[in-house]
Amino acid sequence: MLFVGWGQLISFIAQTDRFMRKYLLPIFLGCAVPALVSAQQQDSVIFRQIADEVLTHSTAYDNLRVLTKEVGGRLAGSPGMVKAEHWGVAALKAAGADTVYLQACMVPHWVRGAREEARIISKRRDYTPPLNVLALGNSVGSGEGGVTAPVLEISSYEELEARKDEVKGKIVFYNYPFNPKFIKTFHSYGDAVKFRGSGASRASKYGALAVIVRSMSHGANNEPHTGAMQYDTAYPRIPAVAIGLQDADRLSQRIKDEPSAQVFLRTNCRMLADTIGHNVIGELKGSKYPDQYLTVGGHLDSWDVAEGAHDDGTGCVQSIEVLRTFKALGIKPERTLRVVLFANEENGTRGGKKYAQVAKERGEKHIFALESDAGGFTPRGFMMTMSDEQRAKVNAWRPLFLPYGIYDFDEPGGGVDVGQLNAAIGAPMAELSPDSQRYFDIHHAPNDVFENVNKRELELGAFAMAALLYMVDKSF
Amino acid sequence: MLFVGWGQLISFIAQTDRFMRKYLLPIFLGCAVPALVSAQQQDSVIFRQIADEVLTHSTAYDNLRVLTKEVGGRLAGSPGMVKAEHWGVAALKAAGADTVYLQACMVPHWVRGAREEARIISKRRDYTPPLNVLALGNSVGSGEGGVTAPVLEISSYEELEARKDEVKGKIVFYNYPFNPKFIKTFHSYGDAVKFRGSGASRASKYGALAVIVRSMSHGANNEPHTGAMQYDTAYPRIPAVAIGLQDADRLSQRIKDEPSAQVFLRTNCRMLADTIGHNVIGELKGSKYPDQYLTVGGHLDSWDVAEGAHDDGTGCVQSIEVLRTFKALGIKPERTLRVVLFANEENGTRGGKKYAQVAKERGEKHIFALESDAGGFTPRGFMMTMSDEQRAKVNAWRPLFLPYGIYDFDEPGGGVDVGQLNAAIGAPMAELSPDSQRYFDIHHAPNDVFENVNKRELELGAFAMAALLYMVDKSF
Repeated sequence: MLFVGWGQLISFIAQTDRFMRKYLLPIFLGCAVPALVSAQQQDSVIFRQIADEVLTHSTAYDNLRVLTKEVGGRLAGSPGMVKAEHWGVAALKAAGADTVYLQACMVPHWVRGAREEARIISKRRDYTPPLNVLALGNSVGSGEGGVTAPVLEISSYEELEARKDEVKGKIVFYNYPFNPKFIKTFHSYGDAVKFRGSGASRASKYGALAVIVRSMSHGANNEPHTGAMQYDTAYPRIPAVAIGLQDADRLSQRIKDEPSAQVFLRTNCRMLADTIGHNVIGELKGSKYPDQYLTVGGHLDSWDVAEGAHDDGTGCVQSIEVLRTFKALGIKPERTLRVVLFANEENGTRGGKKYAQVAKERGEKHIFALESDAGGFTPRGFMMTMSDEQRAKVNAWRPLFLPYGIYDFDEPGGGVDVGQLNAAIGAPMAELSPDSQRYFDIHHAPNDVFENVNKRELELGAFAMAALLYMVDKSF
Repeated sequence: MLFVGWGQLISFIAQTDRFMRKYLLPIFLGCAVPALVSAQQQDSVIFRQIADEVLTHSTAYDNLRVLTKEVGGRLAGSPGMVKAEHWGVAALKAAGADTVYLQACMVPHWVRGAREEARIISKRRDYTPPLNVLALGNSVGSGEGGVTAPVLEISSYEELEARKDEVKGKIVFYNYPFNPKFIKTFHSYGDAVKFRGSGASRASKYGALAVIVRSMSHGANNEPHTGAMQYDTAYPRIPAVAIGLQDADRLSQRIKDEPSAQVFLRTNCRMLADTIGHNVIGELKGSKYPDQYLTVGGHLDSWDVAEGAHDDGTGCVQSIEVLRTFKALGIKPERTLRVVLFANEENGTRGGKKYAQVAKERGEKHIFALESDAGGFTPRGFMMTMSDEQRAKVNAWRPLFLPYGIYDFDEPGGGVDVGQLNAAIGAPMAELSPDSQRYFDIHHAPNDVFENVNKRELELGAFAMAALLYMVDKSF
């Protein structure tokens, strides 16, 4: 863009920011808003106030810096998670919560141990660099001696079944590529993630010694992307790793070129006995119905090898920012706003389950639950699960959201953690739906770091969440 | 995101990709598309084909890697620009253009010389690091001895006028912050860029010796953002630099703390005589009206200190990708498609002016001109300048674009380069409108590099451009 364009740009402003001028200039100028403006005009003023507050005074980005850079990786049960809980309590108090407390729950305690190793064992004398792999969460270690075996490349479960007689004594290599044709990348994830989740037991059933899974990513680098897996207890538990995309291609090519090549794989992880974790909860007491609840949250745990910036540091700091913004603007929600930093989304959902269980036991009335766990990217809308009547209300708010680039309200959904509350007591729920294009470049990988979060994108997501909660509080 | 979410995700796919299933599954399954599907259903099939082609076989990202990493910075008149022209010719031929040629034009020839220097001159004995500055494009050098003078901080032209008696013998420091309240960051740019464009002459009028301009950015780093300026020939030409945001704050604080502090500033740039540059043009001959034109382009030049990745390497490779995609899918536009890599957007618009001038002289019939020069970020829509009738046609295509996240067609506009064609002969025009949140983190700064471009975001922009041109070709 050349500077001579600014005249043109200013004319754009004149034409497109009528909205702001119409509704806000009277306030800026100290005039009273006409008493008879419509309800939606009044809401648009509040939206603008929320946006201005978040875009100028947000503490979300600084909070995220501390969480990612000073706390860092924080898998459930790890010392990092204990530090993160302390961080959460302090951040919620600083944001102005009336009450901050911990809700204990048992969490899985999986430890990676020493970094995993993998390499191609070839009779050729050429050098092949190590394969960049990460053990999958919840998987077992290989033992000190590791596994050395030929590799069977498989691209679908149908192929696995068809070739089941070839599996015994092999390392099964699921090399199913992330489908680039889906526009929303979560659909590519949904399409591919089964190999990570159940691939080990499916292969173990036929005698495989270990599995290597192509990372669920279309990133341009070679980072391996870990994530949770689960064993079917009917079959032996075997080691399971994710492999970076470039090394997946290299391994695939090598076993074609040299069918006798083997892979050596050693993982050092193990599952210990469950331990204690905590949901970190901060409340802003409802002005009219204090015993009715609006929940907003993200998960505080992250994979051990990353800073957990987008997954899900951003969801945590955005949720805290909602509370801070309400306090700063003097917005007193009628219902009690609960910010929940969930204890264990990544490899057990125990935090979400505990929260739902307690809500059910106490007979709490939950009006709405909102989650942010799809990355701190520019918001485009919300995925929602609620009654048709509630959905119709949200749809009526589209004109309020559109000036902020938020237009996509049609996809059903809700987050994994608040999903537990929905399942337990039918609470209406939604999840922030940010632009998804960059998420699987960094998801569950060592490059999910603070530097890959953009301050404004993060803040616009927090704005969207605060604005939605503001509307829901007075409408549901 | 936890893997147990994949069942849920798959259900999302089932519910939201009905569009794709409805229109594309018949093709995937080898069945004939029913003969009586509506025109818009047929178009939706083509849209899906374009998206699939771009998302699976695009050469845009690789082209961009070569342009940014092997050619690099390429200001008009520089050796880099000559290399870039060779690159452009080769890339257009590789994409399948029928004809590739150069269109010569005279361009400004501004050279930076040795990197500029600035520092605070203090009577205190404390150490202050150098100020991170970049000379503004088209500005004059300070001379060997540089400028050493007290600093007058100014935050508006109104303040400049009010304090004009204080300006003489000073360095004027325009410290107007980038307004974070605009949702589309180009509006913040339009609001702030006047200080870069005309600030030097406005201050020179009252005897200033040089100007320092706060960078037009809300980035979190200290990169200075250069860009073009212009002198008013009525006043002496004085040096002008942009300063990084952190150093702008540091300078502001220091001159408050120590009013006698001065700044030393040396710039080594100069404007040489105009030289020859070229628009690089590739054509795909129209199947029905070869003497009618659709233009699609970006600008090939970039600032010298950056790789010109988002500004505007992405626009160039996206425009080339449109042509490649049409060829790959056997789409034969009725009108001649012209991909134009403009020679000199940054500091003169001479490429766009030349293209428009030749079109006018030859009486060419230009149906539409599309530009991409707002970054290679996820597309959200198009800014358009055209007749009401044409705008109504585009609005009718909204349902086709919405599944690709493209919904914003309401803002008027068009690019700086195709704007010349619009001005000269009234050609309808549009500019790709990508998400703007990250653009001013890197705009005109050394961090505008390949690594900050996401492959899928780039490709989705190319898809949007190809889809719009496909529709316009058969409808305008």
